This record gives sequence, C-alpha cells and structure tokens, in this order.
Amino acid sequence: MNTPDYTHVLTQVVDKLSDSNSFGGLFHQHKDGDPLPSGKSLYRIVELSRAILFPGYFGTPNLHTHTIHYHIGVDIEELFTLLTEQIQAGLCFGVESSGMATSDTPCRETAAKLAIQFISRLPELRQILATDVEAAYYGDPAANSFGEIICCYPIIRAITNYRIAHELYLLNIPLIPRIITEMAHSETGIDIHPGACIGHHFTIDHGTGVVIGATCIIGNHVKLYQGVTLGAKSFPLDENGNPIKGIPRHPILEDDVIVYSNATILGRITIGKGATIGGNIWVTEDVPAGARIVQRKNSQT
Amino acid sequence: MNTPDYTHVLTQVVDKLSDSNSFGGLFHQHKDGDPLPSGKSLYRIVELSRAILFPGYFGTPNLHTHTIHYHIGVDIEELFTLLTEQIQAGLCFGVESSGMATSDTPCRETAAKLAIQFISRLPELRQILATDVEAAYYGDPAANSFGEIICCYPIIRAITNYRIAHELYLLNIPLIPRIITEMAHSETGIDIHPGACIGHHFTIDHGTGVVIGATCIIGNHVKLYQGVTLGAKSFPLDENGNPIKGIPRHPILEDDVIVYSNATILGRITIGKGATIGGNIWVTEDVPAGARIVQRKNSQT
Amino acid sequence: MNTPDYTHVLTQVVDKLSDSNSFGGLFHQHKDGDPLPSGKSLYRIVELSRAILFPGYFGTPNLHTHTIHYHIGVDIEELFTLLTEQIQAGLCFGVESSGMATSDTPCRETAAKLAIQFISRLPELRQILATDVEAAYYGDPAANSFGEIICCYPIIRAITNYRIAHELYLLNIPLIPRIITEMAHSETGIDIHPGACIGHHFTIDHGTGVVIGATCIIGNHVKLYQGVTLGAKSFPLDENGNPIKGIPRHPILEDDVIVYSNATILGRITIGKGATIGGNIWVTEDVPAGARIVQRKNSQT
Amino acid sequence: MNTPDYTHVLTQVVDKLSDSNSFGGLFHQHKDGDPLPSGKSLYRIVELSRAILFPGYFGTPNLHTHTIHYHIGVDIEELFTLLTEQIQAGLCFGVESSGMATSDTPCRETAAKLAIQFISRLPELRQILATDVEAAYYGDPAANSFGEIICCYPIIRAITNYRIAHELYLLNIPLIPRIITEMAHSETGIDIHPGACIGHHFTIDHGTGVVIGATCIIGNHVKLYQGVTLGAKSFPLDENGNPIKGIPRHPILEDDVIVYSNATILGRITIGKGATIGGNIWVTEDVPAGARIVQRKNSQT
Amino acid sequence: MNTPDYTHVLTQVVDKLSDSNSFGGLFHQHKDGDPLPSGKSLYRIVELSRAILFPGYFGTPNLHTHTIHYHIGVDIEELFTLLTEQIQAGLCFGVESSGMATSDTPCRETAAKLAIQFISRLPELRQILATDVEAAYYGDPAANSFGEIICCYPIIRAITNYRIAHELYLLNIPLIPRIITEMAHSETGIDIHPGACIGHHFTIDHGTGVVIGATCIIGNHVKLYQGVTLGAKSFPLDENGNPIKGIPRHPILEDDVIVYSNATILGRITIGKGATIGGNIWVTEDVPAGARIVQRKNSQT
Amino acid sequence: MNTPDYTHVLTQVVDKLSDSNSFGGLFHQHKDGDPLPSGKSLYRIVELSRAILFPGYFGTPNLHTHTIHYHIGVDIEELFTLLTEQIQAGLCFGVESSGMATSDTPCRETAAKLAIQFISRLPELRQILATDVEAAYYGDPAANSFGEIICCYPIIRAITNYRIAHELYLLNIPLIPRIITEMAHSETGIDIHPGACIGHHFTIDHGTGVVIGATCIIGNHVKLYQGVTLGAKSFPLDENGNPIKGIPRHPILEDDVIVYSNATILGRITIGKGATIGGNIWVTEDVPAGARIVQRKNSQT
Repeated sequence: MNTPDYTHVLTQVVDKLSDSNSFGGLFHQHKDGDPLPSGKSLYRIVELSRAILFPGYFGTPNLHTHTIHYHIGVDIEELFTLLTEQIQAGLCFGVESSGMATSDTPCRETAAKLAIQFISRLPELRQILATDVEAAYYGDPAANSFGEIICCYPIIRAITNYRIAHELYLLNIPLIPRIITEMAHSETGIDIHPGACIGHHFTIDHGTGVVIGATCIIGNHVKLYQGVTLGAKSFPLDENGNPIKGIPRHPILEDDVIVYSNATILGRITIGKGATIGGNIWVTEDVPAGARIVQRKNSQT
Repeated sequence: MNTPDYTHVLTQVVDKLSDSNSFGGLFHQHKDGDPLPSGKSLYRIVELSRAILFPGYFGTPNLHTHTIHYHIGVDIEELFTLLTEQIQAGLCFGVESSGMATSDTPCRETAAKLAIQFISRLPELRQILATDVEAAYYGDPAANSFGEIICCYPIIRAITNYRIAHELYLLNIPLIPRIITEMAHSETGIDIHPGACIGHHFTIDHGTGVVIGATCIIGNHVKLYQGVTLGAKSFPLDENGNPIKGIPRHPILEDDVIVYSNATILGRITIGKGATIGGNIWVTEDVPAGARIVQRKNSQT
Repeated sequence: MNTPDYTHVLTQVVDKLSDSNSFGGLFHQHKDGDPLPSGKSLYRIVELSRAILFPGYFGTPNLHTHTIHYHIGVDIEELFTLLTEQIQAGLCFGVESSGMATSDTPCRETAAKLAIQFISRLPELRQILATDVEAAYYGDPAANSFGEIICCYPIIRAITNYRIAHELYLLNIPLIPRIITEMAHSETGIDIHPGACIGHHFTIDHGTGVVIGATCIIGNHVKLYQGVTLGAKSFPLDENGNPIKGIPRHPILEDDVIVYSNATILGRITIGKGATIGGNIWVTEDVPAGARIVQRKNSQT
Repeated sequence: MNTPDYTHVLTQVVDKLSDSNSFGGLFHQHKDGDPLPSGKSLYRIVELSRAILFPGYFGTPNLHTHTIHYHIGVDIEELFTLLTEQIQAGLCFGVESSGMATSDTPCRETAAKLAIQFISRLPELRQILATDVEAAYYGDPAANSFGEIICCYPIIRAITNYRIAHELYLLNIPLIPRIITEMAHSETGIDIHPGACIGHHFTIDHGTGVVIGATCIIGNHVKLYQGVTLGAKSFPLDENGNPIKGIPRHPILEDDVIVYSNATILGRITIGKGATIGGNIWVTEDVPAGARIVQRKNSQT
Repeated sequence: MNTPDYTHVLTQVVDKLSDSNSFGGLFHQHKDGDPLPSGKSLYRIVELSRAILFPGYFGTPNLHTHTIHYHIGVDIEELFTLLTEQIQAGLCFGVESSGMATSDTPCRETAAKLAIQFISRLPELRQILATDVEAAYYGDPAANSFGEIICCYPIIRAITNYRIAHELYLLNIPLIPRIITEMAHSETGIDIHPGACIGHHFTIDHGTGVVIGATCIIGNHVKLYQGVTLGAKSFPLDENGNPIKGIPRHPILEDDVIVYSNATILGRITIGKGATIGGNIWVTEDVPAGARIVQRKNSQT
Repeated sequence: MNTPDYTHVLTQVVDKLSDSNSFGGLFHQHKDGDPLPSGKSLYRIVELSRAILFPGYFGTPNLHTHTIHYHIGVDIEELFTLLTEQIQAGLCFGVESSGMATSDTPCRETAAKLAIQFISRLPELRQILATDVEAAYYGDPAANSFGEIICCYPIIRAITNYRIAHELYLLNIPLIPRIITEMAHSETGIDIHPGACIGHHFTIDHGTGVVIGATCIIGNHVKLYQGVTLGAKSFPLDENGNPIKGIPRHPILEDDVIVYSNATILGRITIGKGATIGGNIWVTEDVPAGARIVQRKNSQT
C-alpha cells in the first residue's frame, strides 16, 4: 500500500486539482478578513433565536420567571456578536459576487447596525410566531397541547427559520437568509424562500415537499398540506437568454385559503379568499374567492 | 461596536423579551424536577433500541456470538435508565398540559414500570421488524442483501422508530412517541403517526413525503411508494369551532394493497384487499378489493 | 427502582435478545478484520470530496492560490486512506452477503487500487460538477451568484454525492455507493440511485421527493422539479416469485427535457429530446421529442 | 484472533472479575438515586466559580459592564443546580461510608440549602482572592500585571480551588472539597488540604510539590516557594493501631512568614511572625518570631 | 496580511522543514500498517482498566450486582481489542528502533496472545491494589473511607498505572509501559518506572515529585512521602561513552521502610527492614534495618 | 427547591457580584476587538509546533516522505493564522496593562510580521531540539531509542514549549510566552521561565519540581534532575517597596554542569564549567569549575 506508484498518482492528482485553470468557478478565494458565512455560526444563530423566541422549549431547559432575563441577556449578546460577524461576511460575499469595487467593501459597523435592527424585531417575531402555533394547534385534531406543537411539529421549525430569514432579507443581507431557510428545508422538507411574504396564523401540516417561491404573497389564516408547490410557471429571459431577476412570478394566496397535499400552483395567479384547492392538482389560472377545486375523477381498470 | 447606544438597545430588547406578558404561551416554565423530555436523550434511546434490535448493524460494529449478551445487557440497562427518566418527563408534561391537579403528578415508579413493559416487548419488535426487512428486500430488484436493506434503506429507520413509538403510545405515554416518529420524519421524510396500526411485512419504497395519519389501520404485506398520503379529509369541529379529538378519520388499507407514488387517500375509507392505487391520484371513496385505480389520461399540447 | 424484580426482567430480556435463534437475519456477525463500512468514515469521505471539488466553499474556509495544494494534498491523502479502508469493508460485505467462498476474500491491495482509480477521476468530476452549477444558476431567477448555488442549493449536495457514488458503482464496489446517495437523500430529500446515468448540465430545483431509479438514463441539460419520480412500473418475477435483478426498468430522458413538480414517469419509456412534462401527472408511455404534456383540467365545485 | 480459545479466556476473566467475592472493597454499588459525586460536574463547578470570581479572565472572554450581570446570573444559576446535585451526592456518600442508617439519608432540600450558603459566600471569596493576586504580583519581579498573574500563575488556580473547597469543608460536606483541591493538585502540583486555614495575601511562587496539611493554620501575608511541606511528623494510633482522626498535627505559620523552596516543616509547631525558613531544610521545632533558619554549609569534595 | 511576500516566506519555510536532510532523527516515517502506539488509545486502555479494577468508582457510575458482568464483559472486550492493536504497534516500534530485519516483524497474533496474558492477570491486579488502598487509608488520619481514597488520592492513580505497566513490561512489550506510567506522572507528579518491583501494601502520601527508578526493589508495607527520589548515583559508560543498559543501579527498600519528604536515596544500596529516612536528606550508603536517619541540625542566623 | 426565597438570594448575589465596585481588579473588560489571548488557541499553537518540529511523533501519525510537505504546509498556514491572532491579542493586552495611549494600539500587521519572524525560526528550533533529544538519550540508561525519548520523556515537552516561548519572548510579545511555558509546567511539573537562556544539548531527568528563573543563563551540555531550583535569593525593592523589574538575579550555569535532585541554587552566582552539585543542598555562592558539592553527612539516631 502507498507504494511509490500510488504516491506518484496521488501527487499528480493533487497537482491537477490545485492548478488554477482547473477550478471552473468552483474555487472561492477569500480576500483577507473576508471569509464566507459559516454554516456552523448560522446554525448557532438559529439555535439562539429559537431559544429566545420559545424559552424553555429550545435552549436551556430549566427556566424560572425570576432568572429568565439572565438567559435571554446572554443569548441576545451572543446573538449580536455572531450575527454582526456573519452579516459582515454576507455583505462581503455580496460585494464580491456582484463585482463591485473593493473601496465599497462594507465595514463591521454597518453589520453591527443591521444586527441591532434584526434584534429589535425579535419581540414582534415572537408575537407572530405565537399565532402560527395557534394555527397549527387548532388545525390538527391529533395535537394535545401548544407544547406538543412547539416540540414536535416541523412547521414550527420551518416557519421560525423563515420568519428570521425574512427579516434579514428585508435588511438586504445577501446569502444568509437563504442559508437559514435551507437549514429548515433539510430538517423538515419544507422549502420557503426568505423573500416570500406570509401573514399571521400560517400553518403547514406534515410539510415534506412544500415549496413556497420568492415572490409569493400569502394572507392570514392560510393552511397548506405536504407536497404543495407555490411556484413559477416560466420566467422571461433577457437578451442573453438568462432569466430576468426580480419579476413577480409566484402565486398570491388571499386570507383563509386551504391547499391540500401535492397540489401545484404555478405563476402570478391569485387564489381568492377562502378558496380550497384539492390535492394532486395543477393550477395555473386564478381561482375565485370561496371556490373549491378538486382533481377529476380517476379511472378504474 | 458595542457602543453604549447598542448596549442600551440590547438591554431594552432583553427586558421586552423577558416580560412575562410577552410570552403568549411560548414559554415553558418547569416545576422543579419536571423538565421537558430531552431530544438528546430520546435520540440516544432510539440509537440504543436500533443497536439492540439489529445487533452488528447499528451500535457496536464488532460483535461475536459469545460476547453479544454483554453488549445487549449494557444497552438494555442504559435504555432502562434513560427511558424511565424520559417517560417520567413525558408523564409530567402530560399532566401539566392537561391542567390536572399537581397532587396527581406521576412518580418515578410508574415511569420505571412503563419502561419495563416497553423493554419486555423488544423481542416481539425484533420479530416483526424482520418481516419488514424481508418485505423491503423482496420488493426492490435493486436490493442485493438483507444487510444492504438494514444499512441503507430509509424505511428501516422510519418503521423502527414508528414501531418503538407505537409501543410507547399504547402505554399512554404523552409527547415522547411523537418526538420519536418526528426524528424519523426529519431523517427520512416519512411521517408515520405513532397512533397508526400497521401489520407485518410492511414497506415503503424511497419514502420521502409519505404521511400516515393517527387513526390509519394498515394490514399485512402492504407496500407504499414515496409521496403517498393517508390523511383525513376534514374533521368535525366542536361547539367552539375546535377540531374534535380521537375520531377515526384516516383510511383503512387491507392486506396486500399497493399505493403508487404521490397518491393521496383521504378520509375513513377502505381500500380493499389486494387493491392497487396508481400514482398522483386523489382518492376519497372506498376502493373494492382487487381493484386498480389510475389517473385519467393527460392532455398533450 | 431497579428492585430485584426489575433486574430479573431485564436479565430475562437480555437472554432472549442474545439467543442465537432470535435474530431472524438481523444480526451481523463479523469475521475478524471484516467490519461493516462505517457511516462515520463515509460521511468524512463525502466531506473530503466536497472540500477537494469545491475548495473554499466546503472544508477549510480560508484558502489562497499559493497554498491550496497543501490542503488538497492533505485531503487527498486522508481520502485515500479512508477510502481504501471502506472499500475493503464494502468488498468483504459483498463477498459475505453473496455467500462466496472465503478463500476469495478481497484483500487490502485490491481496495487500494480501486481507491486510486476513484481519486484519479476527481479532476473530471470537478469539470462536470461545474456544468451542474451553471445549470442551477441559469435555471433559477432567484439565484444571485455561483457561490450562492454552491453554498445553499440542495441539488449541489445531491448531485455531488451521486457523481461520487456513481464512480464507485462503476468500480463494482458494493454497498458504499448506496450509503453515499442515501446520505444526500436524508439531507436533501433527493433520492438518486448510484446506478443511474446522468449527463452534464443537470439540475433539480428545490428537489424534495425526487426519485431517480437505478437504470435511468438522463441526457444533457435536463431539469427536474421537486417531487418528480423516474421509477419502475412493475418488474418481472423469477420462478420463485422474487424480482429479477438488473433488467432496465426506468425511463430514458433525452437532452433538454424538463419535468415539472410531482410528475411520475414510470417504466422503460423514452421522453424525447426537448419534451416538457407538466406537474402532477402520471406518465407510463413514450413521449415524443418536443412534446408538452399537462394534467387535464380540474373540476371546480 | 478472537478464536474460541480467546473468547473462552475472556469470558472466564469476566466471570472472575464479576464475582462478588473478588472486589475486596473496591466495588461501589450505589443505592438507587445515590450516585457518587461526578468528576465532570465538579470540574464544571470549578470552571463556573472561576468565571464568576474573575470575570473576563475565565469563562466568557468578552464581557461588558452593562451586560455582565446576565453572564453572572446564568453562571450562578447553573452553579446552584450542579452544586445542589453534587452536594447531595457527597452527603449520601458520607452517610454510606459512615454506615449510618438509611432512614437518615440526607435529602435534596438540605443540599440546596448548603449550595445557597456557599453561593452567598462568593462575594467575600472574591475579596480575599483579590489580596492573593496582589501578593503574587508584588512578590515576583518577573510579573508585569495583575492580568498576567490571573492568567498564568498556578497559585491563582490552586488558591481559588482551595478557597472554594474550604467553604464547602466548613459546611461539613464530605468528599467534594477534597476532590476539588486534588483537581488543583493535578493541574499545578500544589496540594492544599481543604481543612487548612489560610489568611489573606497568601502566595506560593512556582508551587510544584507544595503540601499543606489538614490542620495547618497560616496567617496573613505568608509566602511559600515550590516544594515546601507543611506536614505531620507522626500521629498517635488508637487501640486498634489505626491513626486517630482530627488531632492538630500540622504547623502554625504566623503572619509574614517566608518559607523557601523544598523546606519541610513538620508537626504542630509554630513558626513565629516574620520568620524566614531557608530552602531544603527539615524543621520539627518551633521557630521564634523574626528568626532566619538556613541549611548548614555543604561540603565540597 | 498574507501578502505575496508572506506566502513566499511561508512556502520557503515549508520547503526547509520538509527537506529530508532537516529531520535529524526527529521524523518518524511509518511503514504501512505500522503506526506508532496512540496516546489516545492508551489513555482509553487505562480508563477501561481502572473501570474494571474499581467498578463503580471509575467508568460507569451506576452498577448493580446483577448486571455488573455485562459492564465488565463489554469493557474486557474493548480492552482486548485496543490492547492487541497497541501491543502490535509497540512491538513494531521496538523492532524498528532496534534495526532488526523486517522479516521478523511481529504479527497481530503475537499481540493478541500477549493481550490475553495481560487480561488474565487482572484478577490478581485487583487483589494487590486492594492492599494499596488499605495502606493509603491506614496511613492518613485525614482519610475518611476507602471510597475517598479511591476517588481522590493521587497514589491510587499512580500505583494503578504502574501495576498495569509493570505487567506489560514483564511481557517485554516496548514503549507502551513507559507511556502509561508517564500518563500518571503528568497527572500526579509521581514518576514510577515500569521496571521497578514493588510489594503489596505500598503507598505514597501526596506524591508530587516522587521518582522510583527502573531497577528499584521495594518490599511490602513501604511508605513514601512527596519528593522522594529512589535514583541512580551514576552509571558506568561503555567504550563509546554511552551509559550501559540494564545494570542494577537503584536502591533496594526492604519491608516496612518509611521515607519522608524530599529525601534522595541514590545507587544500589539497601535500606534495611523497618528503617526510617528523614526528609530532605541525601543517602548514598546502606542503612541498617530499624535505623532512623535525619538531617543535621540547621543553623539559625 | 428554587423556591422564591432561594431565587431571591441568587439574584441578590448576582447583583453584588456584578457591582462594578466589587471587582478589585479581577474583572477584565475588553475593548471591542481586543480579546485576551485564548488558552485554547495557544494550546493548538503548541500542538501545531510540536507536529511541525517532530513530524510523525506528534500530529498526523502516518506520514510519508513524498507527502510530508502537504502536512507541514497546512500546519504552517494554520500556525500563521492562529499566531497572528494571538500575538495581536497579546500586544493589546500589553498595551492595556501598561496604560499606554490607545492611539498606539498595535495593529494586525505588526502581529503578522512577528508571526512570520517566529515561523522563520522553526528550522533552527528543530536543529537545537535534536540536540536536546540526544542529550536525554545518552543521559539515561533506561532509554531504548530516540523515539522513546520523544514520545515519553517530559523534558521533550517542557523544552519544546520553552524554546518556542523563548523565541516569542525575544520578539517582545507579552503574556503569550509565559502561558506557553505554564502549559508545560502543568503537564510536566517543569517550570522554565521563557526569559531564561539555555544552550544546546540540555536535558532534565524526570523533571517534576524543576524551576528555572527568568534571568538564568545556562551553557551547553547541562543536565538537571527533578526538583532543582535555579532561583532568586532576594530582590531589591524600589522606593515604593515594590520589586524592581529586570535585574539579573538568577544563577549562571556554565557548560557541562550537572545538578542533582532537589538542589536549590539561588542568586546571581556562577556554577563553573563541569561542576557537579549534589542533591538536596542549598547553594548561594559561586562554585568553581569542576568542583563537586554534596550535602553534609546526616545523623543517625
């Protein structure tokens, strides 16, 4: 083993793979002090946020009314430090990948300011997440308590990551919001783009396979089931044949809409208030308020 | 950075988030000695169970016929200790969330008795899991050995967690069964409610997106494919508009049924013995024994 | 607790579970020096491969042009060591489970030779993965840079694991390729069998629930959406009623095909060059080049 | 390897070593709920105490005046929980090893009360430790700052552990004080018995090999060098030939004494105020205040 | 930072440090399959041995009479595996460093046989260690129980490692015995060479700085205090001026000898039965049985 | 437990301990970006240096001639990064504790320059360490190979840390050199001040308790035994009664000196070339070249 021949092959492969012509865009060379956002730090940021938003359910398991502010204080301070660092990394990444001049490199101060803005939004985030917990509880006869919802239901992890990521998205921070929603995607199978707008009392039952696109607008009291896609039908190309960015291309779901499992709703269409979309169907046109759409009868052989 | 202004904002946010009016039901304050079940301990409980049920495949990798009982002995003892502790936590959680009087707080002895009852069921669990391995092997031409099935196939992880959780569910232990099936859900995309009843020789191919509801009854030799939903069509509300708990609302699948990918079967209907349900269809009515249902022809444009 | 009674029950259960008649094929007894492949080592093998293929994005975060060969050198050497060890374990497992004579037990030298063959293919793997990154970028208006694709998009993790596993599959290494693709399946919900053949510029958007069977043949510039199944319709049984192995039974997708979400394509059929398959449909017959198939209109109630 | 012969030998040895006649007092069988104190928890208790007493030097590295109380709050709460648990374990151990009746088993409430008493002493502990830091700083021309003393000097670790352990010793908690001073012994080579009484402004330079016995009384502003022993000369035996416990048998050092390296001072003698003991000498009689004792001249050959 | 200049310097230093002429004997190149013994594995071997010899004090904290054989069984099996592997590494190292022909490379079978021989000695090791615990207990008025001795007293860790190492030394295993006693040296400051012969009921109080040389012979019921050296006075050189190996050059201590702190006893002299050596003295000649030697009076200035 | 009363006490203690008047110099408040040097990073720096200086003995265990430069390259790069960061922390600490103006805060560029200067010295460090290994080997009849010396002998760890620390000391880096030698002090009981000057072929046998002061000058081929002190006798005080820094106050040992165990040599005296100092003596005056000093005869009682 590891005879001279093999060592020779190994060193040859190393040379080929280290050759600067071999990277094809797959090598990220960092400018000093400009590391990529760190998956590990972002994971910790999500853990801290969950602990702050749902004290006693995530993070330190034993909390008391009189000492909870110590825990939230320590968590908020760590969150501020990590978030400042990661936002800075995200801003640098955005500048680099946009090819902007380095003189415009965003500084640590901007990052700290943005981190503070995010942290100031946490009380509101907790309020809206409380409505999501309610929606999950009242929407599932199998649920026995709010606590069970918070501990077990994948929607809580997915919607929490989305709501965190959406706040960061609104602050124009690149890359990081998407990494945070992809963490929830991997954990729960629910893929919500941080750019989507989602009202209160939102829930998804089971959730695996749900996709919610970047320009979706979702009202209040909306409920989805597993496998639902709210996607784009197609997208216009620019003169170079590349997709044009930023065009509204995903559905609008008004208040009180229910979409059953595996339904696919595509394009900038509107599903009217209170409409019900049955499972396993393909919807590419507006649906009026209150309507109920189901799959055609199947054939028996 | 961390200028007085920022510190000021941080401490203000901490105060808001620690205010007892701000929790909206999202704060779990433990009574002393009554911690929530621990995800980490439950994960270890699943690891131990897998090691005991499939020796040599999970847990210690090198086992010999003459020394295996040392390993099973140590694992069973650790399982007993952890399970007693977690069952106690689960029982407390159940009492708290049900608002029952604290004088009824279940004690450690009850928990130990339930843990022993679960452990006594392990030999039977191993027998039925052996039939599930067989079903997966004979159902997939791509499988080369039982060993490959046990090592790689997501159904083995999902069905093992379900069969563990179902035993705990039958012992009326709150919360824990659901956490255990949700672990498999996150790992495999297969969501089986611990309340469902599932016969022997059960298998699911690929599995991502499968949902099996709490009141499902599934016979022997049943096979599902990825994306299949066995769900509730709707559920009656009580006088307060809340869903009524415990009503049978999910399908019954008799022996030898096959359901292809992405089919959605909803409501307390019966799919008769030996029936085949084609993919991507929406079934809300009984299907007779031996029938074969497929999606209507699509249109080509 | 742990009163004599309980200890008695525990030791009885241990005896039952250690009884050699109780295993039903679920016990893997290793011959000395023939451990099973290790999930932990294979996870590290995937980490190392990702770090070598996408330097700066995975693995060491801070790399410089002048020192990158040190890192690739160290990673390649660790990869060689681990891979030799795991391939040896995989070969032994294959021999054991095939019931071949032990005199044919494959030795460490064969494993090292196969590891070297795999490592020599890494430069080509990086080239084809670069085309997959391109395909993902140009196929999603929401993507802002190649870097974002590599960091966040699940397809990159899934396709990388698949392309690694496929190379090992072509070297006839048992078990390991499947474990590697199942790692990506668990992480992303995308289940690509290592036996499938997939051309360049391949991408899957969102991806949860996608299944690509063992005998699929996929051309260049093909794009799938979440929930798509490329599966087998049925499979012939041998005289004992067991599925016959190795028969082509999954679809062929020619170049430039697009398949929308939750479509199910089954059997050894051909989807012609440039065809578009709409979402939520069930396709079991050939589709001509350039055709566009969509679900029939739904009924509104 | 692991041929039947070896397995046979292994199982024989296991049987011998598990035979209840083979333990010779070396087996600790716990009554349920009465585990031994845990080295790992006590290590954490020391870490927490150091972080609370020297904020910014031990524990969280970045602290700010406005947020320090969050950190101290969280640390104190964890300290209280761990200490209660460990004190309870220590009390049980004391009861068991004293052969007292089990009906007197000390309960968790006593442990919590003692933990609170210890914690209430922390502000005084910090004050006296500040005098020790001063003494180390003014006693070493090589020291550049208080910070260097706290970060690097072994005496700080040893005296901190001793002062913590001494408080627990005064509360009559068995075993734990000794484990804590032995941790410092292993880390620094300084062995101070928790029963010793030591005044303020105490320091030891270098410290390896210092021994301070259980009944020593040390005044203020005392300085020792490495290798100094303050030990017992001999101890009276009881009628069974066992040493009688609790008799004062170690030296008294009055204020301002200096003892140079490797001096051995034995027995209940008094070293008078301001005396200096030279290195490498053996002292078994009182030394008057202000005296200076040195080793006799050596012979040159 | 990391400007081209610095990278240039770094790569230059790397080249110098990788140049095969630069190693001066400090580079260990392994033959394939011949790694050095691993400090981490040897640490685990010591942990396992302590857990087997002192059940309930080291290793698993909660043991019961009826299940202890499971724990000892699992520990013995892990010990056998690790020890076989490490003994093989030690034997290879011995062969390499002696420059013996590679055809004589010792094989895994020899290592397994030696591991079994060591393991068969464990019951006797436990018996003699029980006498050491007794000696420590009866020799210290500050000790409250056997349990306190086992948990806290450094001598127990040092003598256990020595007795383990001595058994391996008697089996002519190179390197490993010394690594094991050096672990205890670092942990306790007690340096006992694995070659020394030590009787039963041996103890050392406090222990820091004790040195016991390779050819010492120590009787039964001997007690040392901290800082005692049992060393070589000088050693004859061979014709090349190198020390001659293997000559008896350290003291013999007969039964019931006591040596007080910091005494230095050098050369192949005999300290007769029951003799007492006072602290801080330098002894290079025989001491008759029953004698009592103390340091000359010091001078007071 | 945790009854309101206890919580009340806990929060009161937290308030006292967070009060800015309570710190007495024991609180380190960092300016932003100016953390203290990290013990964990310095530990890693020592690990990396050992791996680079003794390849194959420390760090990666399996190295081959043809691939060793990859490993050294990766280690050097990590060393440069960590060292730059830690040197910067050390410089900031020095500035802060000296009370210098913040406008003089040393920048990252200075730190990188110093790190490069240190790294450039590594080849010379390896050469001189090779002489220390030789000295240890030829000085101990019990040693069997250079490899055994490097693996087991505490002097190698102590002298390596000292030689690293001394280089950093010569670059005027505060705090860090001392932390590095104190790590070795804790590990080996050998306390060498980084300011001491030590020639080649230096060794210490056993080593526990050795102290070598900051202004010692030690020639070539010097050998010490355990417990030797090379200390200061006394030190002049300035007008405020504080010790004056930087005055030569420790001994000079010329070439070929041997000092036996527990000897104490104090003050700025000179031990002449080739002199031998016997054990357990106290030397405060010059010793001529070639002389041999031993302890006076002891008295027998």
